[in-house]
This record gives sequence, C-alpha cells and structure tokens, in this order.
Amino acid sequence: MTLTPIPLSNMRITGGFWKSRQDITRDVSIPATFKQIKVTGRIDAFKLDWKPDAASSPPHIFWDSDTAKWVETVGYSLVTKPDKILEKQLDALVDSIVAAQQPDGYLNTHFTVVDRDKRFTNLRDLHELYCAGHLMEAAIAHFQSTGKMNFLNAMARYADYLDSVFGPAETGKKPGYCGHPEIELALVKLAKATGKKKYLDLATFFINQRGQMPFYFEQEAEKRGEKPKDYLGALRDREYRQSHIPIREMEEIVGHAVRAQYLMSGAVDVARETGDEDLMRACRAVWNNASMRKNYITGGMGARAEGEAFGEDYELPNESAYAETCAAIAFFFWGHRLLQIDGDAKYADAMERALYNGILSGVSLSGDQFLYVNPLAANLGAGKLERTTWFGCSCCPNNLTRLVLSLGQYIYSVSSDAVYIHFFVEGEAKISLATAGGQEITLRQKTIYPWEGKVDITLSMAKEAEFAVKVRIPGWCKSVAVGINGNEMDASTIPVEKGYMVLSGAWNDGDVIEIVLDMPVERVRAHPSIDADRGLVALQRGPVVYCLEEIDNGKNLGGIALPRSSKLLPTFEPGLLGGVVAISADASRLDMGGWEGILYANKEAKHRSTTIKAVPYFTWGNRGKSQEMIVWVREQ
Amino acid sequence: MTLTPIPLSNMRITGGFWKSRQDITRDVSIPATFKQIKVTGRIDAFKLDWKPDAASSPPHIFWDSDTAKWVETVGYSLVTKPDKILEKQLDALVDSIVAAQQPDGYLNTHFTVVDRDKRFTNLRDLHELYCAGHLMEAAIAHFQSTGKMNFLNAMARYADYLDSVFGPAETGKKPGYCGHPEIELALVKLAKATGKKKYLDLATFFINQRGQMPFYFEQEAEKRGEKPKDYLGALRDREYRQSHIPIREMEEIVGHAVRAQYLMSGAVDVARETGDEDLMRACRAVWNNASMRKNYITGGMGARAEGEAFGEDYELPNESAYAETCAAIAFFFWGHRLLQIDGDAKYADAMERALYNGILSGVSLSGDQFLYVNPLAANLGAGKLERTTWFGCSCCPNNLTRLVLSLGQYIYSVSSDAVYIHFFVEGEAKISLATAGGQEITLRQKTIYPWEGKVDITLSMAKEAEFAVKVRIPGWCKSVAVGINGNEMDASTIPVEKGYMVLSGAWNDGDVIEIVLDMPVERVRAHPSIDADRGLVALQRGPVVYCLEEIDNGKNLGGIALPRSSKLLPTFEPGLLGGVVAISADASRLDMGGWEGILYANKEAKHRSTTIKAVPYFTWGNRGKSQEMIVWVREQ
Repeated sequence: MTLTPIPLSNMRITGGFWKSRQDITRDVSIPATFKQIKVTGRIDAFKLDWKPDAASSPPHIFWDSDTAKWVETVGYSLVTKPDKILEKQLDALVDSIVAAQQPDGYLNTHFTVVDRDKRFTNLRDLHELYCAGHLMEAAIAHFQSTGKMNFLNAMARYADYLDSVFGPAETGKKPGYCGHPEIELALVKLAKATGKKKYLDLATFFINQRGQMPFYFEQEAEKRGEKPKDYLGALRDREYRQSHIPIREMEEIVGHAVRAQYLMSGAVDVARETGDEDLMRACRAVWNNASMRKNYITGGMGARAEGEAFGEDYELPNESAYAETCAAIAFFFWGHRLLQIDGDAKYADAMERALYNGILSGVSLSGDQFLYVNPLAANLGAGKLERTTWFGCSCCPNNLTRLVLSLGQYIYSVSSDAVYIHFFVEGEAKISLATAGGQEITLRQKTIYPWEGKVDITLSMAKEAEFAVKVRIPGWCKSVAVGINGNEMDASTIPVEKGYMVLSGAWNDGDVIEIVLDMPVERVRAHPSIDADRGLVALQRGPVVYCLEEIDNGKNLGGIALPRSSKLLPTFEPGLLGGVVAISADASRLDMGGWEGILYANKEAKHRSTTIKAVPYFTWGNRGKSQEMIVWVREQ
Repeated sequence: MTLTPIPLSNMRITGGFWKSRQDITRDVSIPATFKQIKVTGRIDAFKLDWKPDAASSPPHIFWDSDTAKWVETVGYSLVTKPDKILEKQLDALVDSIVAAQQPDGYLNTHFTVVDRDKRFTNLRDLHELYCAGHLMEAAIAHFQSTGKMNFLNAMARYADYLDSVFGPAETGKKPGYCGHPEIELALVKLAKATGKKKYLDLATFFINQRGQMPFYFEQEAEKRGEKPKDYLGALRDREYRQSHIPIREMEEIVGHAVRAQYLMSGAVDVARETGDEDLMRACRAVWNNASMRKNYITGGMGARAEGEAFGEDYELPNESAYAETCAAIAFFFWGHRLLQIDGDAKYADAMERALYNGILSGVSLSGDQFLYVNPLAANLGAGKLERTTWFGCSCCPNNLTRLVLSLGQYIYSVSSDAVYIHFFVEGEAKISLATAGGQEITLRQKTIYPWEGKVDITLSMAKEAEFAVKVRIPGWCKSVAVGINGNEMDASTIPVEKGYMVLSGAWNDGDVIEIVLDMPVERVRAHPSIDADRGLVALQRGPVVYCLEEIDNGKNLGGIALPRSSKLLPTFEPGLLGGVVAISADASRLDMGGWEGILYANKEAKHRSTTIKAVPYFTWGNRGKSQEMIVWVREQ
C-alpha cells in the first residue's frame, strides 16, 4: 500500500497557526533571504564574471544551493499565492541561473570561475552534486508554479550530462557519488517531473554504489595525491559521509546528520520507484534507530557539533546538542517518504514532533532571524548562540522557508479509497479518489491546533461517495472525542489502523467530522538510557514541547525542581510571543544560601517555593539576549 | 606570622601509604621517564648538534623543561635516599645541560639550534622563560642533593643574563614577562639558594609588570608583524595568560589553569619576600575564588579543555572536566605557599584534597602510565582517555614525580614556638625551635592514613622543652579523639586555632600523642550553584574521594541511584588496587525494560535493587580499558 500526497497546487492554508507562519515567511523571510543571497554575491555569481584578482569573494562551493533553495521557496509560494511582482523577480533570477549553464550542460558557479580545472575531482568534499540536486529541486518548483520550462529543461540537460559522467566503472564512467547526498532525491523528483526514467536510473546507481569497495572517495583522494593518513581518520571519515558500507547493509544512522537523512530520503525514493524491498527494509531499520535512539524530544537530530553528526545510541546531551535546523527538516522529509509507504502514524508523529519544535525554533517569530543549532538548554549570557540574519554556511534559512511554504503537500495523502489526514492545519484540500468516481472532493479543516485539539473537517462534493477518512490520532493523545454532523460517536467503537482512526462510509456534501483530541499538559520523561535526561522531566502539550526561559523564571534555571504533584496549568496568552499557550506550575528552586565558604559538604541543599512559567520551545530566544533556557527540568 | 617548612633533608618517609608511592616513583617512574626524555631526543638536544636537514626532531620549545623536571625529581630522590649510580646518571645529564650554556649565559636548546635569531622575540607563546625557570629549580635541587655547584652556578649566570635583558622600559631593557609563568617562583628560589637579592628583584619586576599597559605581548606581536585581529581574541587572549590586568587588581582566577597558579605561586613568594601586603591580599582573594568556586571535589583545576582553562564560577562539568594533572599540582604548590603565610588549615585541606585525588589520579599504580586530563566521569569505551607512558607535551609526568619525591617538605612547618603537622604521613622529621633552645627534636608519625584516621606521633629530644604541637584537624573530620602518653584527653577542651588543634606544654623525650580522626564514609553534595552536580552525591572517606567503575558495577553507571538511607560500608581490601578501602552500599539502578519502542513518554522509569562498590578516585582506570567511571552518583 503506497499513499500519494496531495499536490501543493490543490492545497490552501487559510487560517490558524500556519497561515500566519506562511504570511510571515512570504512577507518577511523571502525578501530578507533574497537580500542576503544578493548582498553576499550569490546572485551575481551566476554572471560568471569573477576573476582571481576581483575584489569580491569568489563563488563558494555552497552558494548555488542557497540560491536554489530561495528559488524553490518562491516557487512553492507562487503555487498557492500568485504574485506577479514576485514571479518577475523569480524569473529574472532563473534566467541568470540558466544563462550560467555551460554548453555541455554543467552548471556550477564555483567550478566554472574558481576551480575551473577541478570539476568532479573531489566529490567527497566539494558539494558539486549537492548543488546540482538543489538546482533541480528549484527548477521543478519553478516549473510547477509558473509553468515555464526553461529552468526545468536546463536541469534535464544537466542531468543528462551527469548521466554521461557517472556510472559503473566498467562503462568507463566515474563510479562516484556525492559526499553530501541530495542529488539522489532530486534525480527521482526530476524523473517524475520529466518522465525520463534514466534520471531514476542514475539516482539508483548513486544509491547502490555508495559504500561499495573499493571506496570511491579514497581512490579519488589518491588521484589527488592525498595520503591515507590524511584522508582516513579510521572508519570515522567514511561514516561521516555514510560511505562506510552499502546503504542496504545499514542499521544505524551515523555521521553528518543532514547528509545521512538526505541520503535516506533518496534511498526511500529509489526503493519505492524501483520496488527494491531489500533497500526499503534498510531504510526502515535505519529510521527505527534514528527515531528511537538518536532523536531529541524536539525532533532535533545530530547530537554532536563535531562533524555536525549523530552520536551513539541515546547520546543526546542538551546544552551541547547540535540539532541543526536542516537536520530536523531532513528528518521531516525522510519521515514523509516512509509515511507514504507504510501509512503508519509513527512517521507522522515524528514529523510533527520536529515540525512544532526543532524546526520552527530555527526561525524567529519575526521571520528574519535564524538558528543553525538548536540546543535544548542554553545560557546565552555565557555563549554565542543567538538568532542571526544569515550564516557563512547558510543552508538552514532557505530550508526552513521552503518547508513552511510547501507545508500544504504534507498534510494529506490519498490511497485508492481513503484520504489520510496526517496533520491538523486550517485550510482546504481538493482530492479525488478512484473509488469515489474521480469527482473532486474538498476537505476543509478548521482548527487553532496546536493550541487546542478541536478540529472540524467539512467535506464538500458533488454527489455522495463512499470512502474512508483516516484521521491520525497523535501518539501523544490518550483520548479522543468524535462527532459526525453533530452526533457524538462512541470513539471506542471506531477502528484504528496504524494510528489512524478510520471513519468509513458514505459521505455527503456538507458532512462535518468533529475531532477533539484531549490535550492536557503531559510530564514527559526520557528513555532511561539517555544519560542527559535522568531525573528530569519535560512538559509537552499536544505536539508542542515547552521550555523555561530566564525572562519568565529568573536565572539559574537548573536550580528549579518540579514536584510530581504540581498542577500544570495551560493558559492561552494572546499577547505573549504572538499568542501561545503558556504553562504555569508551582515548583521549588534551590536556595543558594547556607553555603558561604563551602564548596563541597555533607549537607543537603535547601529548596524554596516558586512558580514557573513555561513557553513553547519553538518560541525561545525571541525576547532579547542573554537568556538561559532549559527544556528538561529536574523532577522532585 | 610566617611559618617555615622543614627542609627535605630533615625528612624521611619511612612507611605507610607514601613510602610505597615513593618507592614506585624511584623504582619505576624515574627510569621510565628517563627513557622517554632519552628516546624522544630531549637529552641529546643539549648536544646542540641538530641541523635543519637532520632526520631527528628539532628540539621543541618545551623540551628543556621536561628534562629539568626529571633532574629536579632525581635531586629530591637523592636528598632522602642516596644512590651513587643514580647520582652518576644525574651528574652526566647535568654536565651536558651545563655544556649547552652559551657564553652569555643563555641556555635553551630550541632557540640555540632551531630559531637561532628569535631569542626573546615571542615571550607570549614560546615558553622561553618557563624553561629557564624549570632549569633553575632543577639546579637548586641538584645542588641541595649533591652539593655540586656547577648547575647552580650556571643558572645564576643565566639569571644574571636575564637580569641584563629584562627590566623597566626606561632602563632600555625589555619590559616583558613570560606567557607561561614559572620563572617568577624559580627566581625567588634562586635568590634564596644563592643569597643574591637581584634575582628576587627580577622576579618582583616580572610580577609587577604583568598586565601593565601598554600590553607587552601586543607590542611584541606588532613588532613581529602580527595584526591585532590575529593576536587579540578580544579580552580572552589576555586572560588566557593572566596578562589582562596587574596581579594586584585580580580577584578571580582566569585563563590557563597551570599558568595562572604558577603565577600566583610566584606572586605569593614575591609578596612574602618583599612584604608586599597589597599583592598578598590579591593572592588570597584569587585563592578564595579558585578554591571556593572553581575547584573540583578531586582538587582538579581547570574546567575547560579549550585553553586548558578555568571556566566561570561554578562551571565544573564532570565528563568534560579538563583538570590537568599539572594544574592540581600547581594548586598544591600555591596552597602550600599561602599556608606558610597564614597558618590556616583551609589551605592544607585544599592541598590534601588535590593530593589524594586529582594529583594521584595522574599516575597509574604501576608508576609508569600517566594521565594529563583527569575527568570526574568517563566512558573510555567511547573515548580517548587512557593512561599512557608519555605525551607530546609531557609536562605532567615529571611534575608528579617531583612532587611525590619532595612530599616530605610539605608535611610540617615550624614557627618560633610551635611545630605544625599539616599532613599525616608515616615518617620522621628533625626540627628545631627557637623557644625550645634550638635542640634537635624528632617527630615520628606512625599511621596508615588515609585508610584509617589513627596517627601516633612520638617526640624525641635530649631535654624537656616547652612548645606547641599544632595538629591539623582536617575539614572533613567532625570528631577527633586525642591521647597523650596513653591518657585520653577531653578533645573539647583543647584549643583549635585556624583548624589546628594546639597541644602546648612541656614535652619530654618519648612523649606520644595519639590522634584518632573519625573517618566515616560521608555523603558529599556540591554547592547548589554547580549545575553539573545537582541531584548528585559523591562519597568521601577521610581525604579520599571515591568513584564507581564499570568493572565493579557494570555498564551504565549513570543509571545508578543511591538512596539517602543506604548504609555505606568501608572495607579494607588488601588485594584490591594495591590495598585500598573500598565502599559498598545498597543502591538501585534504572531498569531499562518497559521502554521498547518508546523514546519519550509520560511514564516513570523503574528502578531495581543493586549493590554498588566504590573505589578511591585516584585508583580509577588501573584495571584494563573500556571503563565507565563516575564520581558523582544520583541520589534518591
């Protein structure tokens, strides 16, 4: 059973939480990030007029990907909200990108004007195919939003060129693959957009070739004159790029967190398109490891700053958590792909955890300040962590914007006889189902989720149709009430399949399904193997994970303890952080008194009463600098 | 009131804990470290025959200091245990060092054969005066043990040369000081050994000049053509070398932990010798900050690996603790100096904490394997930390050996009318007191301290004498019993001054003072401001801090919790780790069951009963590899 997402063009987000997010992204983030790619030289780089003696920076190896993601973002924006001025701006940029394509189809600003003679000589480090992949995704979004073929055609020519360069050694081609995966998923997308199977074949080659011996990156390094002692930090170096073993032998997610998850996303795509069950089995196994042993409560991925990498199983430190914004987004992408294969709500649970926490934390409420790293505890007074407008390596901002503006396509899926509601987002979707005679059916959700668990779903259709509405019951939800056209159902009698409540029958125009997901504040504890969280508790309400900030709770947050008996009171505060549900509770905090002139002693610390206020983690750091923040609180 | 330590030549350690440590140091560590300085080229470096085209390594800027500390160690060894063969080996090495001295008195292998034209052009980074200081300390120990003047005279000539180079700018000399302090304390020692006050004056200049504007290191850097953006990482760079402000303005210990404490040791020396009360006040203030806010329970100093540096107040993480062996030794040296000034047991308490924990942990029980970094929690399975025979930058091994073999001089002090017993170490000391008519008095301690708190002190003298025996009551000790010649005293009637129990009166030959320090196992908690230790407890018995090791307690030590009600049972185990008191207790540990397929949930972890066994922290990592270790245990 494979599900099909609803195309973005059939989706509108019309109100509630995500409408305001999308508005800010359109109104603030898109112009702000354009300004950054412009002033840093990323746009002018496509003029290919940089010279070694130029005063400007040479085009950097990542640059094309940042611009590509801006194009992709704008494409998604235009699909759901046409805007002639923005489209003109987009087209001009696309024209300049396309004009930079070389006669043979190659397109990369760095290798065309800086390292002219180094094309495809260092796949390991230089992100060449990574940039190509992002350009392809951009071209597809540009085509889908504007109907214009120029960029898509150019990228097809680029893919044709890549196909002439890369392939099995016995064909005389380079048997390589990119140190930073991305091209794989992009080629599968391109194959679907163009109908050309050879792009899927090339993606399949990249996926299957990875980790085969002899190791391509090492052969390539020797050709460049590198010595094994330089390029081999033992096995680690191979694992950093997920090239240590073939993907189908993997059971654990290792190495650079974004690379690993872009790779797994591409692997799911290839497995799905080629019916490769063995590969799919590995993708599921690695997912299980990633989601059950290496995932922060915020959905953040990648524990270690060194190598921007996954740690060992259950190695999930809080203050030093890396949890790159892009890695949480990659987790969301990967989960979405497996969700379509298995129709299991566990993937949507994981996606939602990332979405409302470790992804959204990556951008300020104002839409123009970003985080690269998303720790679960911070002391900004001591440290360097603050949201900023841009980064030297600025993959995250435009990754966030493209996700927010393409969110519509992740909300629903259809099978032949059912529509799946994965996420609760106010808006409407147009679907058609084979078993419902192919007529257009519109679903409208009305909800202020995640602040409340009430969701009204209205169905519109020309004539009665029999199909199933499958509504995800989130993993955090222990009790749900269901009404249909005002009649309360006995929820216990409604079948649940893989986490989806199955409402099947004959539906008529105007039918209304009311769902109320019970959403109390939960005390969440971590698996006892997670060293960093022992004796600690986190607060979660619905999908939203909370944190304590210094601005609400004073300094020295680690001195706060939350008694097991404390009542946790959620209150919607319209004036706070753009309108959020905050949580208050009675707690205690360490009394620093009585320890003058003592550093260690056989005495117990005293506690005094206090009240605490928790706010959604994704809103942290939006109220000025020098803030302490913690997600995990000591439990008493 | 200034106390005077008893010279090493009047001390013998004759049994108990430290006798075996000294035997191993003599029998194993001295030959092992000699082998290392030999095979690494440090000894041959003094031949000055290295050429740029040589196959051997060029003499490194630190090398001379490592050899110097070996010489110093052997000097201390010979003072208390003559050994003709070892003395011959020492003299040969000393001859080769002295032969390397240049006609002008300068002596540094690196700058004589490698960077020939860079003498004193980079005081900031290149450890030139640091090496000079260690050579001076070595020369003094060589003289005191052998009576030979050659090395001491050479070092006096070197100091004369330094005096001609360094001084106030208005004299036309370089107004600089060393990036790595050490020369200051060495020059004060040399002044005392030679009777030449000008060496004290030079030390005083270095101490007073440090941190004055314009900043010498920055002027010097500009002369070398460095740009401010390269040499100024804001204020941090100045603080790293304690050159940010004049010492007498300091109130906080900052920067590189060894540098900071060698500097403060030298500053106390200068303040004492010059009667500079203002400087001494600063030394005490910085000590209070260091000992009350930046000191590990093991006596370890320096929380951060980056810069081998102190962190903020109460920043004392356990697993990432740097706590360099040399830094704990430096703390010991510094404390010893202040102890002589103030006669306050708080310094001896701190010294003893370092000595039995964070210093001794730096060497294996076998005497030939060393730790540079001494964390308070470890997972050797995941990490790199293991004792090893030597380091590229190998300051620690010979710092340990010189301390162990000079320990005798730290045990007692005398004032005009009292003898202070700072530490409990089996052995004998010959003292004389002004008020006791100058006759030789011998004190003999008999004790198996730190394993038991019983100490018998026998006094021998030709004729009755009136003086005070001041016995330190350790800060950890809450109850003490005292007997004199078999008669139990009412301890509550004995006066205690600054932590020393004052036993004064007329003493006769053969008098025996029996002290029994009550030594139960203590549950120690940290100041509530120490984030890393909240909710945790450490076990300590006497001065010895304990740890749990995987070999005794299985993996996943962080899952262990110690109930407040558990009885803590100490048992001397003669076959364990060379004979130690181990501690056993009933405890609980997290049950990992019930969490299959769950990473975060509103459920509590279960505990099951277990027993734990704790061993002295200083013995950790002596039973094979791949060990988890923790000092701080969760408390229940």
